[in-house]
Amino acid sequence: MKFKPAASIFLSLAIFSPSLFAEGSVKPAPNGITLPEAYKDWRVISISHRTDNHSLRSILGNDIAVKAARSGNTHPWPRGSILAKLVWKEKAKEHWPTAIAPDRFVHAEFMFKDSEKYRSTGGWGYARWLGMDQKPYGKDSDFAQECVTCHTPVKDNDWVFTTPAIMP
Amino acid sequence: MKFKPAASIFLSLAIFSPSLFAEGSVKPAPNGITLPEAYKDWRVISISHRTDNHSLRSILGNDIAVKAARSGNTHPWPRGSILAKLVWKEKAKEHWPTAIAPDRFVHAEFMFKDSEKYRSTGGWGYARWLGMDQKPYGKDSDFAQECVTCHTPVKDNDWVFTTPAIMP
Repeated sequence: MKFKPAASIFLSLAIFSPSLFAEGSVKPAPNGITLPEAYKDWRVISISHRTDNHSLRSILGNDIAVKAARSGNTHPWPRGSILAKLVWKEKAKEHWPTAIAPDRFVHAEFMFKDSEKYRSTGGWGYARWLGMDQKPYGKDSDFAQECVTCHTPVKDNDWVFTTPAIMP
Repeated sequence: MKFKPAASIFLSLAIFSPSLFAEGSVKPAPNGITLPEAYKDWRVISISHRTDNHSLRSILGNDIAVKAARSGNTHPWPRGSILAKLVWKEKAKEHWPTAIAPDRFVHAEFMFKDSEKYRSTGGWGYARWLGMDQKPYGKDSDFAQECVTCHTPVKDNDWVFTTPAIMP
């Protein structure tokens, strides 16, 4: 088989630079869940400050989740709800030291509601992407059992720690 | 002048129930600034936990502000930027007591960037609406000097306390 020079160069780039055509892409979690596009543009549902591990969290939701949160329809959350938690390490603000604000980005973690699809993990699919390069968390699909274990105290709250913040 | 009974009742309601046709409306701040519609749908720029007055804050921005925040174009923030700070009292989470989350809603406060229009207050227009009924803060337009005084430590940061949170 004979390639024209340009095609040959193109093929070499494709083989030896797998990232060439994947710039900005993020690998799926080990359970096959993919990072939702534009999750950073989702609307706020609540926030929290974990003083045990010194992190701040912004909890966002997709349209289904935000509609449910604002109408009090979260027992259970409706199918298709996605909750996103953006997590940063904490830092005292330079000009207001008693104010704690985000420092480095730790990870973004998600819960996807589908009682049938995610029956084995309480009706929610879990996924987490680490750091600024958004590396998927977990060696294999069993990683989600770790999530379920941690969320067990809120089993009666549809496995969700977050209570939607009250807004006017 | 003679009214039919139905019209008379209607007029009485209009006179004695000024809120009848103003349901959902919010009065402007004493400096004339009006509450931006749909500010709760704006995207997140950062969050903070003020441990001095025990409040949690979600800092949102309109499209101009979010674009500026994500591109590092905040020295100064561009004209038309609006920053919204939603403030709640803090509360320890029932099922994770070391996590601090929003309790009652305190107020929503705003900064509107326009160097010409708001020259007397450092290039930003200030406004705040209190509580769930969103009562405008301040007796008269001088209230904004109080805001400027408090923001003076960050004069060299274009009068803004918030540093946009780092995101992937």
